[in-house]
Amino acid sequence: MTVSTNPFDDDKLHEECGVFGIYGHPDAAALTVLGLHALQHRGQEAAGVVSYDGKQFHSERALGLVGDTLSSESVIASLPGDSAIGHNRYSTSGGTVLRNVQPLFAELSGGGFAIGHNGNLTNAMTLRRMLVSKGAIFQASSDTEVIIHLVALSQQPRLVDRVVDALRQIEGAYSLVILTQKKMIGIRDPLGIRPLVLGEMEGGVPVLASESVAFDIIGAKYVREIEPGEMIVFTENGIQSLRPFPQLKARPCIFENIYFSRPDTLTSSGSVYEIRKRIGAELSREMPVDADLVIPVPDSGTPAAIGYSQESGIPFELGIIRNHYVGRTFIEPTDSIRHLGVRLKHNANKAQIAGKRVILVDDSIVRGTTSIKIVEMIRSAGAKEVHMRIASPPTTHSCFYGVDTPERHKLLAARMSIDDMARLIGVDSLAFLSMDGLYRAVGETGRDARQPQYCDACFSGEYPIRLVDHDGGQQSQLSLLAEA
Amino acid sequence: MTVSTNPFDDDKLHEECGVFGIYGHPDAAALTVLGLHALQHRGQEAAGVVSYDGKQFHSERALGLVGDTLSSESVIASLPGDSAIGHNRYSTSGGTVLRNVQPLFAELSGGGFAIGHNGNLTNAMTLRRMLVSKGAIFQASSDTEVIIHLVALSQQPRLVDRVVDALRQIEGAYSLVILTQKKMIGIRDPLGIRPLVLGEMEGGVPVLASESVAFDIIGAKYVREIEPGEMIVFTENGIQSLRPFPQLKARPCIFENIYFSRPDTLTSSGSVYEIRKRIGAELSREMPVDADLVIPVPDSGTPAAIGYSQESGIPFELGIIRNHYVGRTFIEPTDSIRHLGVRLKHNANKAQIAGKRVILVDDSIVRGTTSIKIVEMIRSAGAKEVHMRIASPPTTHSCFYGVDTPERHKLLAARMSIDDMARLIGVDSLAFLSMDGLYRAVGETGRDARQPQYCDACFSGEYPIRLVDHDGGQQSQLSLLAEA
Amino acid sequence: MTVSTNPFDDDKLHEECGVFGIYGHPDAAALTVLGLHALQHRGQEAAGVVSYDGKQFHSERALGLVGDTLSSESVIASLPGDSAIGHNRYSTSGGTVLRNVQPLFAELSGGGFAIGHNGNLTNAMTLRRMLVSKGAIFQASSDTEVIIHLVALSQQPRLVDRVVDALRQIEGAYSLVILTQKKMIGIRDPLGIRPLVLGEMEGGVPVLASESVAFDIIGAKYVREIEPGEMIVFTENGIQSLRPFPQLKARPCIFENIYFSRPDTLTSSGSVYEIRKRIGAELSREMPVDADLVIPVPDSGTPAAIGYSQESGIPFELGIIRNHYVGRTFIEPTDSIRHLGVRLKHNANKAQIAGKRVILVDDSIVRGTTSIKIVEMIRSAGAKEVHMRIASPPTTHSCFYGVDTPERHKLLAARMSIDDMARLIGVDSLAFLSMDGLYRAVGETGRDARQPQYCDACFSGEYPIRLVDHDGGQQSQLSLLAEA
Amino acid sequence: MTVSTNPFDDDKLHEECGVFGIYGHPDAAALTVLGLHALQHRGQEAAGVVSYDGKQFHSERALGLVGDTLSSESVIASLPGDSAIGHNRYSTSGGTVLRNVQPLFAELSGGGFAIGHNGNLTNAMTLRRMLVSKGAIFQASSDTEVIIHLVALSQQPRLVDRVVDALRQIEGAYSLVILTQKKMIGIRDPLGIRPLVLGEMEGGVPVLASESVAFDIIGAKYVREIEPGEMIVFTENGIQSLRPFPQLKARPCIFENIYFSRPDTLTSSGSVYEIRKRIGAELSREMPVDADLVIPVPDSGTPAAIGYSQESGIPFELGIIRNHYVGRTFIEPTDSIRHLGVRLKHNANKAQIAGKRVILVDDSIVRGTTSIKIVEMIRSAGAKEVHMRIASPPTTHSCFYGVDTPERHKLLAARMSIDDMARLIGVDSLAFLSMDGLYRAVGETGRDARQPQYCDACFSGEYPIRLVDHDGGQQSQLSLLAEA
Repeated sequence: MTVSTNPFDDDKLHEECGVFGIYGHPDAAALTVLGLHALQHRGQEAAGVVSYDGKQFHSERALGLVGDTLSSESVIASLPGDSAIGHNRYSTSGGTVLRNVQPLFAELSGGGFAIGHNGNLTNAMTLRRMLVSKGAIFQASSDTEVIIHLVALSQQPRLVDRVVDALRQIEGAYSLVILTQKKMIGIRDPLGIRPLVLGEMEGGVPVLASESVAFDIIGAKYVREIEPGEMIVFTENGIQSLRPFPQLKARPCIFENIYFSRPDTLTSSGSVYEIRKRIGAELSREMPVDADLVIPVPDSGTPAAIGYSQESGIPFELGIIRNHYVGRTFIEPTDSIRHLGVRLKHNANKAQIAGKRVILVDDSIVRGTTSIKIVEMIRSAGAKEVHMRIASPPTTHSCFYGVDTPERHKLLAARMSIDDMARLIGVDSLAFLSMDGLYRAVGETGRDARQPQYCDACFSGEYPIRLVDHDGGQQSQLSLLAEA
Repeated sequence: MTVSTNPFDDDKLHEECGVFGIYGHPDAAALTVLGLHALQHRGQEAAGVVSYDGKQFHSERALGLVGDTLSSESVIASLPGDSAIGHNRYSTSGGTVLRNVQPLFAELSGGGFAIGHNGNLTNAMTLRRMLVSKGAIFQASSDTEVIIHLVALSQQPRLVDRVVDALRQIEGAYSLVILTQKKMIGIRDPLGIRPLVLGEMEGGVPVLASESVAFDIIGAKYVREIEPGEMIVFTENGIQSLRPFPQLKARPCIFENIYFSRPDTLTSSGSVYEIRKRIGAELSREMPVDADLVIPVPDSGTPAAIGYSQESGIPFELGIIRNHYVGRTFIEPTDSIRHLGVRLKHNANKAQIAGKRVILVDDSIVRGTTSIKIVEMIRSAGAKEVHMRIASPPTTHSCFYGVDTPERHKLLAARMSIDDMARLIGVDSLAFLSMDGLYRAVGETGRDARQPQYCDACFSGEYPIRLVDHDGGQQSQLSLLAEA
Repeated sequence: MTVSTNPFDDDKLHEECGVFGIYGHPDAAALTVLGLHALQHRGQEAAGVVSYDGKQFHSERALGLVGDTLSSESVIASLPGDSAIGHNRYSTSGGTVLRNVQPLFAELSGGGFAIGHNGNLTNAMTLRRMLVSKGAIFQASSDTEVIIHLVALSQQPRLVDRVVDALRQIEGAYSLVILTQKKMIGIRDPLGIRPLVLGEMEGGVPVLASESVAFDIIGAKYVREIEPGEMIVFTENGIQSLRPFPQLKARPCIFENIYFSRPDTLTSSGSVYEIRKRIGAELSREMPVDADLVIPVPDSGTPAAIGYSQESGIPFELGIIRNHYVGRTFIEPTDSIRHLGVRLKHNANKAQIAGKRVILVDDSIVRGTTSIKIVEMIRSAGAKEVHMRIASPPTTHSCFYGVDTPERHKLLAARMSIDDMARLIGVDSLAFLSMDGLYRAVGETGRDARQPQYCDACFSGEYPIRLVDHDGGQQSQLSLLAEA
Repeated sequence: MTVSTNPFDDDKLHEECGVFGIYGHPDAAALTVLGLHALQHRGQEAAGVVSYDGKQFHSERALGLVGDTLSSESVIASLPGDSAIGHNRYSTSGGTVLRNVQPLFAELSGGGFAIGHNGNLTNAMTLRRMLVSKGAIFQASSDTEVIIHLVALSQQPRLVDRVVDALRQIEGAYSLVILTQKKMIGIRDPLGIRPLVLGEMEGGVPVLASESVAFDIIGAKYVREIEPGEMIVFTENGIQSLRPFPQLKARPCIFENIYFSRPDTLTSSGSVYEIRKRIGAELSREMPVDADLVIPVPDSGTPAAIGYSQESGIPFELGIIRNHYVGRTFIEPTDSIRHLGVRLKHNANKAQIAGKRVILVDDSIVRGTTSIKIVEMIRSAGAKEVHMRIASPPTTHSCFYGVDTPERHKLLAARMSIDDMARLIGVDSLAFLSMDGLYRAVGETGRDARQPQYCDACFSGEYPIRLVDHDGGQQSQLSLLAEA
């Protein structure tokens, strides 16, 4: 199996999932596999595809990368049919097991029902306890199974209404793709926390995906975002857009722009690469420093570093070289060589760094463990000064909406001041982008304090959806409405 | 197994091997595995380590990446001893089989003998026929086995002399690491075609490696290059440097500077990253063009593109985004979707490119197949003009000295003019670095036409070592001397 | 994986499952694995164990033989706790998949619930349709999952009562072992179709198993059969025997004595080996023939052949030699050698057979395909006469109570007379044991025609439990009562 | 992988190899695989086939059983050609590695040369040291490689003469099959220690095999034994029989009749099954005992037990029941259950044994460890008396001619008297067959003490071929002649 070659990805927040769906194409499964491959950065631990061939559903799920497990001719051949949905999963806990891999599938009384989910429900445990007490049997630990049980138990005669029944009971962040015998359905939660976009292939074939890069790989055209609170239904007779929820002001996740999304993704705010370059330029204006070169922490820091370099005029250089070939299980073999501080994934470009004043640009600081190692490496390569610039505000709060974040007490910025962080990391100066700077980079004039335009809970601690399972019922704007 | 994520590496020349050796360290095998990992770019198909524990030799060889196959604690534990040598292999033909994986090992009358070889002998077939007629039995197809047989058949009493006996019969390019019961030996062929460098760990422990990056990963210090024609022998009593060949003017491979070596490698000409930036700057001066942005073909074109951008003042941008997660066996599933021109490993950064005049910088053009696809991708992202700049002269000749090159008639530059190439590739302009420009970038004032300072046969067709097996005996400078 | 070496087992009826349970022993899982190994003949396709350690349940399930998949130290270590149940499975259809492998486990509102089932429900499909219409979600295709759903949906407060609720809704053959947080439960259906026996280890630790051989392997003592219709409950406070059903006259499967059970198993009728020898003696008295030697069809025909030989005085000889080493996937390679009639698993002992009058003793004839091959082999080894004697009455009907039988029209004895069978098989004479002879061998004076002492539906067509799913509701004795 | 299901085979002598060859059949490889399957009892650890298709040699070798590794269509398809040889290997030491698996193959100056060897050379180490000192390079540890080197170094122009050159230098036991571009050759050592037989398929296609059972499986006819000292050469032009050695009186291994060969094998002394029954009858006459039943130790003791029962009139019963399904890696899981004396492979048939006087018949006693366990099991099943009868004389000496025997000091009969053995094993009486009784059973009137008709060194300590490597040069009859 192949693993990420991103050298510093152990100490990042991780998007938990990517979804894809296509309705009415003879190569539905093959295109879904390609789409999942383009979305691989959103989840690398497992992937699955469910197709429907007019008579029955077919399912292939596997642990590992799409390109290792689902892309062979024999797998594709076992997924006949002209509609399909797919899912990439990033495991949030150690035990990824196959029965948790999505899309989940169940035979309901109305027929087969497959579902893929990006996001996280905040009242899943509460609902699960209720369902078990009514005799429901759960197979897996995923919160998505709760949705299926709610659909199964709904007394509505029409499937779409049973899904709406279920949605009105759940809270949290969710972008869903659903496949039934007659329909493909896409749903984005009322605040639109997680992304979901609509595309179109030649001949008007509709596709759904978490990001537009999944359209590029199959030659599909980007049409628009699925709107927050929208439920879009594809049938033989066409497309229908429903609004099953009260209208709320959208709060999409701002971190998608900082790290999660691929730089070549297009959003309603424009190109992610451009946003990141603007972030770097803002950072240079807000936190300038006199230095000899700008070095990105590869690869996620690169666009911001280019923006910083272009704005400041300080040359951009590759100061850290990656090893492209990182195997699965590199174990540092003995204690006696552990002190060597072996760097398996990267190496300092000494000839560039020695004797220089260096600006290191990274997208964020989570635990800080990686930052410490990078700075150590840069220092031991002979840098005269090391200044770190972070392309986002301090990450002080955990995410409960489908992002794998450490618990709050493990977040470095939640535990100490910026000065203390600078000392710990060992830099001559450390600076973060301001919240307003971030909002400017995404196209706003600043953050609207009364009703922020994005979900920025990881920076602000302001959670737009109540955390039912977590805090036992603190009320939030959404849940009040959902209960109305 | 993990594969390269370099998006365009199918259409490159490939270094065939990397070697490593360490003598007198309690963690010899673990350090060798780390060294091989740092040299993984020199050969990804297989790797092996032989260690000696004072009583017997231990060997582990495997197909696949070092990090997947040799880095586990159990493998390391099965390689006890305080001396070890290792080898990375890039298969030159389809059939990589385990018995071809190096280091090769044989029990000779004087004791065990292990050898790792980077390079290619030019008279291996001729010697092999001679040896078989004398009753020698060959197990594998590698030319390295010829060396072992020649050592085995030598009548000299001392092992070092038997090795010298063998070396005097072979022709070609070779950097060798040898491990016996009492000695580690490093040898570089008389012209020094392939690299071999000497390092030192704390406490004076000597290490050998193809490139200095293998020292960085284990915290060893770079000492110097093994000199062309030098045979360096490590024993308990110290280091001895022998000169078993007549002195010749060195001709190291110039392509190491262009593509093979890692950018963070140090050579006697300085930092490879710096050389590549100077190549980019030379290219900008020699072949300027009015444009909006400079885009590297990732990843090998990046340093030259930075050099080009800094010299020309045209902004450097990431115009091609890589997918980090490329699985092993991605099969384009059906004919009907093949025409989509699916791009599994990369995607154009449309928002940057659309409507712009683009300079694409790549290190070399081999068959040209990849260049065609890249340009197509850039054009379909909306570029107004595409200008390609190549950081080396046209590659017109095959290499017979340990580099995997297509046959000459498959090399694009051997088949057509630069203008025809430009038309085929679909660019508005195409330009290569001049030979003198290349020599300037590596620190010379230009190419010495009578006696070039490097082996540049792939550009010039001037082969410094005769190709015995290939052309049946045409005489060259080296062989005359070797026979003297 | 290992496969059966029984040469002729392709053309046999197959017991579908074996179960095991132990309550209150520090090595519960290890002993369960050993018990399953001793019961391997009852199901070779998959096996599983669930243990409970006082805090949580642990589960290991695998396709393949117990000795290949569950017996390693690491598997045992992952099954801590002092109570455990286990299950061997013989797949009745092609697609054995892991999620069908038992014991099945579910988290119910009252806590964890694990179940292993030997037998087959005759109204499972009917119940399943009802459950799905109520919103139940099924994961697997096994009828056992129906039982779990019925328990989950029961409104009784106590678990034992919820199980009884479920049992009162199911019909068919079942021997069950159940493990909950506080209890181990053993249940045998009201007619006692499938076996279930109680044993005891040193210190009074109770064990349950399908056959007493599972006690021998762990040094446990055979106590008694679980009685038909009995529900035995083990808790910390001791053993309780419940009778949740109206009392019915038992009808255990008579075929257990002919083929399914191991010869070293003890039943309430005594030693299975002795029964089979008595069957052979009955057969010799009922169907004598003048011949030179008695040859068993290995291995299942051997005890009856010994009985036949001892009763008739005709010598017993090994006329068919097995190859002990039969691999997994022996494919007859090409058409041109297929006509050789290659015998991979056995060979005739020519020196014994040539020129002799041979009595072949086999336990039963199912499709007849194997009998044809055996007789052909014996004839081509030079036998003068071949007389076949079958240690059971003609198999004319399918079993629906947990035995893998071909459909009725594939059963040779359902399609033709004994004379026609003899001609087809190519023997000089063919004779079956009479029904009364069979009942005498198991210790009765004959078959009680009004109320037979055993289930002998495969010979008589008299099904003691109605086949709800199969024939849509034909009433039988049991179901009337069950509905009462 | 599949393993033997013979319950007591851990404590047996083991034949080390089986060979097969076929010349001139379009399905050569498929038939070779079938032949090796029939010879699987002679070696289970690895197997290989080499075929020749008129242009080149093809080789497939694998660890494991033939039916698991070589019998698939794809393997057969990779072995084209109309001549082939094959080999089964029983590893004599722990480390079976693929490069030791035969047939071995080498490209010699005269062309390709493949060889399979059953037996063991007694001067292999001595020859190997000589060859290494001349510069030969050995890849593997097998003595067979010595033969190839001797052939390679011979200066004779014709291949047959080079083979004869090599044979005149080797000493020991060997049955060889050799395949070259033009010929298949079969060779049996001058004393004919190991078997080799000639067969014929329809159309006169010649086949060679270790035992005639390999002919039965492919429908070939048994022709005759290859005679001791015979070299038989098959070419397009026919068959030639050569006698390259001085004529010696044959001394075939007598143990083949006791245990190694399959019972359905035919030898020049007749059917092995008949011989074993005669052994049992001799044993009954020589060592009678008053008892209730005769029980074979399965499976190898069965024919002798039948012979004993028929001669004595005491009934033959299956007192030990085998578990047919023995997995690969059954580990007794914890100390606390080890004392249970778990019997994974067999179980006593208690109902037969309890209260009875039992005669246990086994073929031989090696270390005695298994006998102790069996008797313990029989006793704990309630036997009143246990009498053990062994179908061979006491095994007191190691074999150096191709049989895996423990070192002499581990052989129970070499360490103690029969009375002491009886006490150790725990039987009421123990008796072995006499040497003369054994010779009578194989058709002689008794053992010719001056010049025994068989090799019986394992019983007598009289080694007919000197053990050069082992004792450094003690002269024997053969070597004197071989040196003449």
